[in-house]
Amino acid sequence: MISLESMRTVMTKMISEFEELDHIVGQFLVGNLSKGANASGSPYFNVELRDASGSISAKKWDIRPNDENIFTIGNVVLIEGEVIKYKDSLQMKITSAEPVPLEELDVAKFIKAPPIPKEELIKRFNAHVESIKNEDCRKILDYLIKRLSPRLFDYPAAVSVHHEYGSGLLMHTVSMADHAVYFANYYKDIDLDILLTGVLLHDMGKCIEFEGPVVYKYSLEGKLLGHITIMTSEIRRAAEGLKITSEVPILLEHMVLAHHGYQEFGSPVLPQTKEALLLSLIDNLDSKIVIASKALEGVNPGEFSQKIFPLDNRMLYKPKE
Amino acid sequence: MISLESMRTVMTKMISEFEELDHIVGQFLVGNLSKGANASGSPYFNVELRDASGSISAKKWDIRPNDENIFTIGNVVLIEGEVIKYKDSLQMKITSAEPVPLEELDVAKFIKAPPIPKEELIKRFNAHVESIKNEDCRKILDYLIKRLSPRLFDYPAAVSVHHEYGSGLLMHTVSMADHAVYFANYYKDIDLDILLTGVLLHDMGKCIEFEGPVVYKYSLEGKLLGHITIMTSEIRRAAEGLKITSEVPILLEHMVLAHHGYQEFGSPVLPQTKEALLLSLIDNLDSKIVIASKALEGVNPGEFSQKIFPLDNRMLYKPKE
Amino acid sequence: MISLESMRTVMTKMISEFEELDHIVGQFLVGNLSKGANASGSPYFNVELRDASGSISAKKWDIRPNDENIFTIGNVVLIEGEVIKYKDSLQMKITSAEPVPLEELDVAKFIKAPPIPKEELIKRFNAHVESIKNEDCRKILDYLIKRLSPRLFDYPAAVSVHHEYGSGLLMHTVSMADHAVYFANYYKDIDLDILLTGVLLHDMGKCIEFEGPVVYKYSLEGKLLGHITIMTSEIRRAAEGLKITSEVPILLEHMVLAHHGYQEFGSPVLPQTKEALLLSLIDNLDSKIVIASKALEGVNPGEFSQKIFPLDNRMLYKPKE
Amino acid sequence: MISLESMRTVMTKMISEFEELDHIVGQFLVGNLSKGANASGSPYFNVELRDASGSISAKKWDIRPNDENIFTIGNVVLIEGEVIKYKDSLQMKITSAEPVPLEELDVAKFIKAPPIPKEELIKRFNAHVESIKNEDCRKILDYLIKRLSPRLFDYPAAVSVHHEYGSGLLMHTVSMADHAVYFANYYKDIDLDILLTGVLLHDMGKCIEFEGPVVYKYSLEGKLLGHITIMTSEIRRAAEGLKITSEVPILLEHMVLAHHGYQEFGSPVLPQTKEALLLSLIDNLDSKIVIASKALEGVNPGEFSQKIFPLDNRMLYKPKE
Amino acid sequence: MISLESMRTVMTKMISEFEELDHIVGQFLVGNLSKGANASGSPYFNVELRDASGSISAKKWDIRPNDENIFTIGNVVLIEGEVIKYKDSLQMKITSAEPVPLEELDVAKFIKAPPIPKEELIKRFNAHVESIKNEDCRKILDYLIKRLSPRLFDYPAAVSVHHEYGSGLLMHTVSMADHAVYFANYYKDIDLDILLTGVLLHDMGKCIEFEGPVVYKYSLEGKLLGHITIMTSEIRRAAEGLKITSEVPILLEHMVLAHHGYQEFGSPVLPQTKEALLLSLIDNLDSKIVIASKALEGVNPGEFSQKIFPLDNRMLYKPKE
Amino acid sequence: MISLESMRTVMTKMISEFEELDHIVGQFLVGNLSKGANASGSPYFNVELRDASGSISAKKWDIRPNDENIFTIGNVVLIEGEVIKYKDSLQMKITSAEPVPLEELDVAKFIKAPPIPKEELIKRFNAHVESIKNEDCRKILDYLIKRLSPRLFDYPAAVSVHHEYGSGLLMHTVSMADHAVYFANYYKDIDLDILLTGVLLHDMGKCIEFEGPVVYKYSLEGKLLGHITIMTSEIRRAAEGLKITSEVPILLEHMVLAHHGYQEFGSPVLPQTKEALLLSLIDNLDSKIVIASKALEGVNPGEFSQKIFPLDNRMLYKPKE
Repeated sequence: MISLESMRTVMTKMISEFEELDHIVGQFLVGNLSKGANASGSPYFNVELRDASGSISAKKWDIRPNDENIFTIGNVVLIEGEVIKYKDSLQMKITSAEPVPLEELDVAKFIKAPPIPKEELIKRFNAHVESIKNEDCRKILDYLIKRLSPRLFDYPAAVSVHHEYGSGLLMHTVSMADHAVYFANYYKDIDLDILLTGVLLHDMGKCIEFEGPVVYKYSLEGKLLGHITIMTSEIRRAAEGLKITSEVPILLEHMVLAHHGYQEFGSPVLPQTKEALLLSLIDNLDSKIVIASKALEGVNPGEFSQKIFPLDNRMLYKPKE
Repeated sequence: MISLESMRTVMTKMISEFEELDHIVGQFLVGNLSKGANASGSPYFNVELRDASGSISAKKWDIRPNDENIFTIGNVVLIEGEVIKYKDSLQMKITSAEPVPLEELDVAKFIKAPPIPKEELIKRFNAHVESIKNEDCRKILDYLIKRLSPRLFDYPAAVSVHHEYGSGLLMHTVSMADHAVYFANYYKDIDLDILLTGVLLHDMGKCIEFEGPVVYKYSLEGKLLGHITIMTSEIRRAAEGLKITSEVPILLEHMVLAHHGYQEFGSPVLPQTKEALLLSLIDNLDSKIVIASKALEGVNPGEFSQKIFPLDNRMLYKPKE
Repeated sequence: MISLESMRTVMTKMISEFEELDHIVGQFLVGNLSKGANASGSPYFNVELRDASGSISAKKWDIRPNDENIFTIGNVVLIEGEVIKYKDSLQMKITSAEPVPLEELDVAKFIKAPPIPKEELIKRFNAHVESIKNEDCRKILDYLIKRLSPRLFDYPAAVSVHHEYGSGLLMHTVSMADHAVYFANYYKDIDLDILLTGVLLHDMGKCIEFEGPVVYKYSLEGKLLGHITIMTSEIRRAAEGLKITSEVPILLEHMVLAHHGYQEFGSPVLPQTKEALLLSLIDNLDSKIVIASKALEGVNPGEFSQKIFPLDNRMLYKPKE
Repeated sequence: MISLESMRTVMTKMISEFEELDHIVGQFLVGNLSKGANASGSPYFNVELRDASGSISAKKWDIRPNDENIFTIGNVVLIEGEVIKYKDSLQMKITSAEPVPLEELDVAKFIKAPPIPKEELIKRFNAHVESIKNEDCRKILDYLIKRLSPRLFDYPAAVSVHHEYGSGLLMHTVSMADHAVYFANYYKDIDLDILLTGVLLHDMGKCIEFEGPVVYKYSLEGKLLGHITIMTSEIRRAAEGLKITSEVPILLEHMVLAHHGYQEFGSPVLPQTKEALLLSLIDNLDSKIVIASKALEGVNPGEFSQKIFPLDNRMLYKPKE
Repeated sequence: MISLESMRTVMTKMISEFEELDHIVGQFLVGNLSKGANASGSPYFNVELRDASGSISAKKWDIRPNDENIFTIGNVVLIEGEVIKYKDSLQMKITSAEPVPLEELDVAKFIKAPPIPKEELIKRFNAHVESIKNEDCRKILDYLIKRLSPRLFDYPAAVSVHHEYGSGLLMHTVSMADHAVYFANYYKDIDLDILLTGVLLHDMGKCIEFEGPVVYKYSLEGKLLGHITIMTSEIRRAAEGLKITSEVPILLEHMVLAHHGYQEFGSPVLPQTKEALLLSLIDNLDSKIVIASKALEGVNPGEFSQKIFPLDNRMLYKPKE
Repeated sequence: MISLESMRTVMTKMISEFEELDHIVGQFLVGNLSKGANASGSPYFNVELRDASGSISAKKWDIRPNDENIFTIGNVVLIEGEVIKYKDSLQMKITSAEPVPLEELDVAKFIKAPPIPKEELIKRFNAHVESIKNEDCRKILDYLIKRLSPRLFDYPAAVSVHHEYGSGLLMHTVSMADHAVYFANYYKDIDLDILLTGVLLHDMGKCIEFEGPVVYKYSLEGKLLGHITIMTSEIRRAAEGLKITSEVPILLEHMVLAHHGYQEFGSPVLPQTKEALLLSLIDNLDSKIVIASKALEGVNPGEFSQKIFPLDNRMLYKPKE
């Protein structure tokens, strides 16, 4: 048990603000865990603790019976400890740890804010929705937004706490919608209502594919079906429930189904309408540019990034200024 | 117009029974069409006529204004003509031709009977359905069988009039169900109810993927979505309508989604349960053996078949007896 | 020889304006050629004649000794003939034909005008050039534009008279430059000067890769080196001649070298800067959308296009209105 | 030397029966080995000891000059030691170790029994052999069974002590033979004698491809030729020796050669007879189902297995009950 | 029947020597065949006739009952006819044709001579054999040369009458043996005896893979097993018959088995000895250079060859002189 | 600081000559580095030290503030230490270390001598140059040799200190030139001047692709452009500067561009002249044989090498003697 007394004198800083000799109490995510043995053979834990501001290496030297359960990767733990310096880096010496019940979880502490405030993104998302005049598109869209809110506005764009911020799904969707408007204006013969509805729906299946309040993991449906199939089914079901008889639901299902562009990337059919083709190209473009930008954050001019897994493991060069 | 008088004296044989000098009137399918010009430059049609018994080469020498519409590949045409011999083969000289309205179409004349009578297949299909004890499986299955009957019992297994017989889908499904029972008895730890339901459902989406009374073609949904996605969506919708909350619908959707085994064959996810894996293996086995058997029909012992497209274009050898 | 007399009474229409019984004299491109033999065994030519407005099937019944040389695919021929109707289509009966010397070639008759007038495109191209402030970029760009004008403004985007219009290269380059400006404004940390210079240069090597006044063919350099390598070398040479010592030429060479995105598409290196990555994505997007638009021209709503070779042979669907 | 005295008081349990404080003497297989250094810099061995019942982590703290040779991965070692508890797991502290001469090796201790007793499997194997009426098949089969017994009945199905049991090759062969009988009855026009002979022979080359009494390794022939080529050659040689002039040996060689189905899986030719095709499909089916069953052993309902290498690294889900 | 009288006055020239108005009688190979119908609807044959000197287009206007059997592709036919000129090319008008019994076949007329006389090649082949000192190599080699002579010295290098000459297999083998000697002298640590024996044996299986006196076709063994597997088996059988117990036969079998270099080219194992690696590299080099030389025969300087199928369909450029 | 006194008594041996208890001072390359912590938690370095004669494991127990910078992989460090024995191996205990300024670097100590002396290789290289009679070839070659000397004669063949010796690029080039002469003599119709010039130029771009006096690394140009593109550009530039107007520069550029043979190996075009094809085949052959020879160095007869990465990770077998 963490004593009430100690709670009064300790600090509750974010990891990025830690300084040597700080006495800290707070909720932290177990990002990584390995076990070691000290010179006398007693076991200890090397733990990576994380919050939205960063991560720190920590040691739990004295292992208690329940610690194995508490220190599970992905768990949030209430930790008390001291910040020390080791080999020029800060490290935390954990003095006590206890589980955090779901209802006491301080979710906001673990989710990085998106580059644009969530409220602003929601406003832009809604403006795109409002711009759609095709009635069948609007009915399906309104129904599914209602069904999948508020997850739709909170979820990250991918399953990974690393580099990912909250509302990443929303951010990606709004960017793609902006690009859709740009290209529909630029090229002739694009049906913007269909394209925009497809864009707004295309990744919504991730609200069912992922689960978890802090560390997102694939749900069973996510693993066995995938967000593409889940969302395609949802549109079909919505259209039948809304008694829509036009071609619109098939076009929307097709856009969602084909948006990864190729079978080897998880789309069982290739894009076969101009709108589906454009959607998959915009998705590819926005995803890759965002990945590249993240990978180049913090890289010095004149140097290369780390290997970037989703970009075929290539390294990117940041030119000299 | 074909005169009533001539109708009285002509024959209505199947193509395989034609003899030289027969005078024929009957419905025939336009299997292929090319245009030629005779020595004086006048155009004529080379037509391949088909019924379930075979095909014959025919000529329409005198082209009338509407003939271009009547002789469309895939159309069924009411034809009057004479059987002649040309270079040792029978050929038909078409004297008149007129379109057949859909309601007068003699479908039975164009569909080869399956090797096992349709009624017998339906009986075996139903026996498999009856054997399933899992209530969620039965509810979904009963609902979807009702929804997709009677197409389910009539459709061929693939879009092609060549080599395909009616009820081919049913024949393939019943064979796979028999194999499912065999393997579930052989190996331990197979959930036969789940496997069998998956088998009975797995190709039902073809009832929506294909369309047409005689020559089956891909429907718009078939092209833009494919039978795998269509059926996965149908199960999801059925399960929600039937208020099923167990894991069963996800397992069934997964089996249908994964049954082609690999992404490059159209399944966006790989089989991830033992039942899904076994289903895809049985499907692969039955399909390939049936294709091989068809390809070897009529090949002489000691000779090779034609190249078989769905078997990587290989030729199969029929051993000497 | 085509008699002067006949010249006075004949018409010089574009193919799309031909009507039955027209008597035509004019330059036409031999798009395709096959040989036949008439009933008496005498040879004749089936010729496809083309101009920028379309194509027509033609017959040359009476073959003269030199006709084999005159009717070579890709040649422009001065033809006199009559327009007749055959099987509901117009056809031309060629009465005489003679070669067209290069200096009398009416190039404008064979090159479709781009959707936007060439002068307008040049103006927009130049405006993009003017917007670049980086001096090294400007020096290299100015040098190479001068070196490759005016081909740069006239060439089609690809080697094919079919569907291709004049200034296609310019049209594609200006569209990509517009997109570059849009995306550089949208995303942070893009060096627009570098990106824009790369876009303006990326396909200029086609001015050396292709050759020919009407029907563009690959030059020897085009076949043995390809436009990507040609242009990369040109930038290197320019930079050395201009005594530029900054990193800029390497970044530009890299963008050109990597713009096909993958080795199997002809880029020996993958894009390794954000600007190179974005350039390859914009190129891919613009190319595919333009191909899709062309393929859907003339397709009826509710129907599919022909198979589109550069889009993996898929057919595109034009939705109902 | 392990003292005789200590031998009297110690136990010779299987690893799965070990309890804390047991004093053990017995033969164990060195499954894995790594070297460490204690706090004072002295080296020690971390050893994984195995028998057919399982494995245990062990330490050899005091390294003797010959220990490096004795503790070689794959060796069987006579070990004396004590079972202690460390971090909630049992561990063995090795007090002495000496090599086991080949002739004293207690093979039975290291080979897991197959799910069906070996004698029963041999009986079923022989029944399949007896069922074959084709004389050429029988002659070749009898000759090769005699040549490769008794390895044929003892060998595992794959080179790996992990998860593999003795007679695995026999078990797999008998299962496939059972399936061959089932399918030959189900489909028409299968030559069961040819198919069954192919099945019984198809993997016999593994008796030459692998070697070793406990831990099977690839022999030189196994590495340079592979079991498919080895067995194909053996059939050819047998047929020549037995003066068989029918087509039968070629059909059998072909079935063995083609049984992996594709070139990338090691078959230089594709199956080109119906029997060869069916054999490869049955082999694929039985192998994958057995692998899946092993991977799901011990997985809790509602959870996923580890990644399964021979199933494309996928994880399998065990449904809730 | 061809009249004796006409035989006296006709010529028996090779095709390359034909002149207009020649009256020819002689054996010719039917290289290609298509059927046409003349203006009055009567059928006729377009035949390509070949001998070792070239090919000529021919017509058989008047079809007799047995002509269909006589004019089979690959047959050699005794033909009488007249050489006429049609569209600037020579053509033969066939007046009579009859089958040639196997024993009267003038094989030498259809097989192009190799660039180096066969006797010279045999001498060089034997010199390479004589140079081998390793006794096991010599025993196996002598045995197999005896078994496969004289086919070994007559066969072409590939199944195709086009571009292929007699003794092509021998020519390719001798070239590779020369290269083997060169490289074994150049690099250290090559076992020339092993390498040379492997080279001399590597393609001998083609003597069993192909069959036919003039037009070589794949035999049943060729199709179901392939020359690589056939020869590997032959070495194994030879070694056992010769009671060789050294490693030599395994090394030789391995070299033959691996000589196509990769699984997708038909070698089930990769080269795993230096000699096997070098053999596969020499084979690849000699094959490609010979194919390139043939493809460039007759191409004018400054022009490209036809597409070359075995070189990935590329065209080769012949530089200007 | 290393004391002058200690310098007097210590030895400056190469690593392969180290003996127990030697006291060493000398320059060593940091080949590898990992950090550990001793029993009391203090950090230490595990360093792999290398020179041209071999490598040794070393410990730096007492870490000074600047040691992290000094012990960077790829750095050459002036080290003082003692050779001790640990677990039967020699190990160095580092007592002091300091950086080596570039101008004091003893390059010769780190570069293995090539198997043939550099002077001898240069002589043979020059003889090949002298043999070329084509003036355009000579002009380009002379210009580029001058431009890239002396790196051309010093550089290794690949970026890796492991197994690589100095002048490796030269050694590989001379071997290929020898092979070029051999094959041009053997086959007809090879233009030896063109082939030889291509061989001598083909890898010269590595002089710009790599950089560094001891450990070669990819330069920025190496990474963004690659040696193939760099050299192709250099030839183009040279030809323009030398005012060469023949086809020769295009043929040379093509040979360099195509020498990796396939797009997936970095050549954007396939070899399209016989000389380019032969060059790529010789390059492939020499590279693979040299890699195989290195991999088999030190392997005992009857055993396999390690996995060889550039040979598809296969292991090679060294036959028994």
